[in-house]
Amino acid sequence: MAANEFSETHRVVYYEVDDTAHLTLAMLINLFVLVSEDQNTALNLTTDFIKSQGVGWVVTQYHIQIERLPRTGDVVTVKTRATSYNRYFAYREYWLFDAAGHQLAYGEGIWVTMSYETRKIATIPDAIMAPYASEQQTRLPRLPRPDRADAALTGVFKPYTVRYFDIDNNGHVNNAHYFEWMLDALPADFLRQQQPTDVKIRFENEVQYGHQVISEVRRSTATTTQHTVKLGTTTAVEATVTWEKA
Amino acid sequence: MAANEFSETHRVVYYEVDDTAHLTLAMLINLFVLVSEDQNTALNLTTDFIKSQGVGWVVTQYHIQIERLPRTGDVVTVKTRATSYNRYFAYREYWLFDAAGHQLAYGEGIWVTMSYETRKIATIPDAIMAPYASEQQTRLPRLPRPDRADAALTGVFKPYTVRYFDIDNNGHVNNAHYFEWMLDALPADFLRQQQPTDVKIRFENEVQYGHQVISEVRRSTATTTQHTVKLGTTTAVEATVTWEKA
Repeated sequence: MAANEFSETHRVVYYEVDDTAHLTLAMLINLFVLVSEDQNTALNLTTDFIKSQGVGWVVTQYHIQIERLPRTGDVVTVKTRATSYNRYFAYREYWLFDAAGHQLAYGEGIWVTMSYETRKIATIPDAIMAPYASEQQTRLPRLPRPDRADAALTGVFKPYTVRYFDIDNNGHVNNAHYFEWMLDALPADFLRQQQPTDVKIRFENEVQYGHQVISEVRRSTATTTQHTVKLGTTTAVEATVTWEKA
Repeated sequence: MAANEFSETHRVVYYEVDDTAHLTLAMLINLFVLVSEDQNTALNLTTDFIKSQGVGWVVTQYHIQIERLPRTGDVVTVKTRATSYNRYFAYREYWLFDAAGHQLAYGEGIWVTMSYETRKIATIPDAIMAPYASEQQTRLPRLPRPDRADAALTGVFKPYTVRYFDIDNNGHVNNAHYFEWMLDALPADFLRQQQPTDVKIRFENEVQYGHQVISEVRRSTATTTQHTVKLGTTTAVEATVTWEKA
């Protein structure tokens, strides 16, 4: 049986866009996570039920390919599918469509379950996986990793302090904020003139309320930027973003 | 004829709440502004049309009274009315209701039109006011001002740099971000244990992308906090917030 799909519509509004009126990458991630949370609710996979299995879902990697970001007022459809999984990893896909059904963005994510007791990766409990009707597979698709940061390139370093309002109701930093820290380190004119077409991101270590992180960015090629968010010498997130003229 | 009212529903989602699952003040302001922008669209008062009159709307003051902030998953109704105006000022009201029609919050705002040419307050053009069917009045309701900051009280000072993604499609800092800067300067435990019941805020000077502002907060009484956001010695925003145990 094919994995359950779930979709919903969303109207893009003024506080979700940047100064060029395009949906921000941070909001795109918020919408992808929202549609999967709404799928969970529809399948009775509530946060409390998942907690009762002793685990919580954590994303380790995304690969996002973008045709075009929608603008203020656009009504979009967001779709997701918990496509496949094995003992330790779940592979989820995401789509963003415009009102005419044209694909605007496609995302893939690798998720794991962390044990509350051991604080380590745990076998995915059957009870929280079965409702998706996902395919059980020995080998899951591998997402491309971000490029290695090349320390020989000149970097720009910007500090960000994790704010109270960066923390979500699960007590963790909402991942969307990493995108704000990463991209804000680029010049405003660059962000106005370029649009992201491909994002490879890997989450390595969690940061907490009050931590001061450093967002490092390097222009690795004419069309790619290399991002690292660090807490001291520990890497929290690494990402590679490909850009094209807007 | 009574002023036109306009309302719409909104589902509160996970990225709009704090770690206690309650809608943030910043998002409450976003929803108030959104419903008034949607009213403008419904009345054909587009941003381009308003610009064609040589002006733009700017808020100078809000007074917000809160019964209770909604939580993740709640469907709320947001309502607004451009109640009355005179040559220079427009008085607008806002309401937030829960699904059962119970009032959760009530807001009042004073708006002015700024001339693009002179960068000063301009007479409100008839063409952008008439569609609301607002009442023309010599004297508008006066909103209570924030208390004067008492420099004798110990202050906490936190710096914030205006980010690219703080700027909206009109090229201005989205006012909701002032609420993040003001409240983030309070301790997390205070924010978890208290809820705002009354907010008086006055916008005095605009800040720009790249500016470093200082958010100052003082506990003026057991139940009130006094906030100032400053750019150097210039006050950008002053606010008084009243709290009660959540």
